[in-house]
Amino acid sequence: MRAVDIILKKRHGEALSGNEINFFIEGYVNGSIPDYQASALLMAICCNGMDSRETSDLTSAMVKSGDIVDLSPIKAVKVDKHSTGGVGDTTTLIVAPIVAACGVPVAKMSGRGLGHTGGTLDKLESIPGFRTDLSMEEFIQAVQAAGLAVIGQTGNLVPADKLLYTLRDVTGTVDSIPLIASSIMSKKVAAGSDAIVLDVKTGNGAFMQTTEDSFALAEEMVEIGIRAGKRVMAVVTDMDQPLGMAVGNSLEVKEAIAVLKNELSGPLKEVSLYLAANMLLTADACSSFEEGMKEAKDALESGKALNKLGEMINRQGGNKAVLENPDLLPAAEHVISVRSDTEGYISSIDTQKVGISSLITGAGRSKKEDKIDPAVGLVMKKRVGDITKKGDILAEIHVNNLKAYEEAAAVFHSAIHISEHKPEPKPLILGTVTRDGVKRF
Amino acid sequence: MRAVDIILKKRHGEALSGNEINFFIEGYVNGSIPDYQASALLMAICCNGMDSRETSDLTSAMVKSGDIVDLSPIKAVKVDKHSTGGVGDTTTLIVAPIVAACGVPVAKMSGRGLGHTGGTLDKLESIPGFRTDLSMEEFIQAVQAAGLAVIGQTGNLVPADKLLYTLRDVTGTVDSIPLIASSIMSKKVAAGSDAIVLDVKTGNGAFMQTTEDSFALAEEMVEIGIRAGKRVMAVVTDMDQPLGMAVGNSLEVKEAIAVLKNELSGPLKEVSLYLAANMLLTADACSSFEEGMKEAKDALESGKALNKLGEMINRQGGNKAVLENPDLLPAAEHVISVRSDTEGYISSIDTQKVGISSLITGAGRSKKEDKIDPAVGLVMKKRVGDITKKGDILAEIHVNNLKAYEEAAAVFHSAIHISEHKPEPKPLILGTVTRDGVKRF
Repeated sequence: MRAVDIILKKRHGEALSGNEINFFIEGYVNGSIPDYQASALLMAICCNGMDSRETSDLTSAMVKSGDIVDLSPIKAVKVDKHSTGGVGDTTTLIVAPIVAACGVPVAKMSGRGLGHTGGTLDKLESIPGFRTDLSMEEFIQAVQAAGLAVIGQTGNLVPADKLLYTLRDVTGTVDSIPLIASSIMSKKVAAGSDAIVLDVKTGNGAFMQTTEDSFALAEEMVEIGIRAGKRVMAVVTDMDQPLGMAVGNSLEVKEAIAVLKNELSGPLKEVSLYLAANMLLTADACSSFEEGMKEAKDALESGKALNKLGEMINRQGGNKAVLENPDLLPAAEHVISVRSDTEGYISSIDTQKVGISSLITGAGRSKKEDKIDPAVGLVMKKRVGDITKKGDILAEIHVNNLKAYEEAAAVFHSAIHISEHKPEPKPLILGTVTRDGVKRF
Repeated sequence: MRAVDIILKKRHGEALSGNEINFFIEGYVNGSIPDYQASALLMAICCNGMDSRETSDLTSAMVKSGDIVDLSPIKAVKVDKHSTGGVGDTTTLIVAPIVAACGVPVAKMSGRGLGHTGGTLDKLESIPGFRTDLSMEEFIQAVQAAGLAVIGQTGNLVPADKLLYTLRDVTGTVDSIPLIASSIMSKKVAAGSDAIVLDVKTGNGAFMQTTEDSFALAEEMVEIGIRAGKRVMAVVTDMDQPLGMAVGNSLEVKEAIAVLKNELSGPLKEVSLYLAANMLLTADACSSFEEGMKEAKDALESGKALNKLGEMINRQGGNKAVLENPDLLPAAEHVISVRSDTEGYISSIDTQKVGISSLITGAGRSKKEDKIDPAVGLVMKKRVGDITKKGDILAEIHVNNLKAYEEAAAVFHSAIHISEHKPEPKPLILGTVTRDGVKRF
């Protein structure tokens, strides 16, 4: 078998066999296939696509390139959740405790933020003392004891994805459904959970900006999950504005705590409950979505979920007193209001710009190596459809550096569009993809 | 400017600007753009194409990557000819002396054979003493004195093409009209002639197997030539069977000598005269194609062209006595006939296989580094449309090694298809492409 023949086959739009895909991924990881052949194949995949069988085979080949987490010591159906990334998306911190409180263990590996999107690890690490670098043994013990744990990716998980992602980033081959789907799903499959709920974001703050692309990605990932023998479903949710009001690490933790304390409702709570109900259903812990939703609401409203979060924080070395007293979380020196200079309806929000505004305050990373400031970010005071008067506060920007404020405020201002006309309301949850097919709401 | 943005632009099917193309080629040649980005761009070009302006800009950028031959000391319109490569295609050895005999200087840089196709340098080097490695000074002096010289590529001509070609070969990106056209034309433009006649081969022995692709390549190359300020035209000629009867280096030289001595007619002579007439017309040495054809025929029939070849051989260190006595050329030890095992019409010939059969005798190269044997090859005795009886000689195989004969004969046999039905005759010259457009015959 020769790498060049595999490239040519894909260039001519033919489907690659499982053996060919294995040969290529193995060769790339062991160094016998050079970067320049891999980038040619990636571009051919971008141009000519891959069918579901190929994408599944690519995922399996990537999974096989490294270790697979063995969660079998945890005796139950383990459930995982993955979001394709957005702004103000703090669902993991709400959903994982709810599901764990309902008796379904959550052993989750999360990532860090990059660009305009945030990452769960960064948020958790804003809790004083919280450790995301547990060993595999500590991780499993934590899940056994508390019913949930969230850590960073450990060990040699899917090295093929790390190599391919680095190459894709510099060769214009990031934005391709089979490549995105296999990258996400290889990590989910290797992370060892039995059931997976995917939250595919759609809109101007998401990786997939159109509804069509988002459903296509959701379908591809569900198909991969099924072929890998997982219980899997996807929810497509709106990211045409930040999900919560807070964007920034400790600010988002505070917002999640407020939801778990029943002090706050809105889209963040709504999507969290929807995901939690689906996680319970996918893990076979309830017999219907409605039952799952009832259990999830009970866990939230009873305070059981808040207690689970406390157990997790405690178990992972953090100070769980932050739940009672969120002021123990890092806070920025300056909180400065951005005010509207006109009146009307908030007609749209450029979500990516809101994420970048928060990045500018120091809450995010332009490059992987960048350090972040857990205290800073912004809290929006208006959402799409809200009325604003001249001088109304649009957001509060939290900074430790007044120069960063100027720039962040300017970017935030440019993200908010105000119009005389009330915008058409948009659905928050656009649909689901399960093994039974696509449902659009 | 960033390489990744240029790759993305082409990936999304947009046209690249001249500046972007220059930036990429310059960066690739100076090493600031790595192979993996170049191969991604090449694949995006293969998948999404390039328009004529882009292909011209790519050609210019490649020309600028190295030296350009200065033929200005030769005071006349210099004419060059290029064939896209075929089997038994010895036209250069016939055409160049004819054109030079008509007073138009030919300063030609030729290549070597690779795979199933032959190369003019290899053929000339089968003449005892013949040097193809003249210095630029010797080259120009030779053209000034004899009116023609044929040498290998000298100096640092189009280094971008060498780099890109090596990369294309291993990344499945060889077969793309803009990449082929720019590769060929960059070398022709850098080689410094004023007028260029392109012989685009079409059929089962050619790089372009379909008539459509061949005309498309011809159009693209003529367009590049015009944009580069050259006098240029292309002829599309048949390569659905070898052009001459001989395939192999000294065997083809013998055949060319026989044509120049008026001992042999047929397709090789016909195409040679057609190309020569067009070279004269393109160089403005005659006022019509018919006049050019008359001059070319006169030069051939009068023996003037044969004398020109003798002058060139002499000037380049070769033994011109081979013209009088072709037995002075290297000859193989064994000449063995391949006979027909059935009767009927020769319905088709797999030309590529005929080339490979010759390669197996030792006349060609599988890899660039391979050594060739000038003496070996084969001489066909039948062409498409000829009748054969059982036991008739189809070809004579010239070998220095009987084992090679067995294999070469088997491949040759498998290349010849015999049928009860007389095949439809096909045209030898399919059309032309000039600045006035495409003419199909």
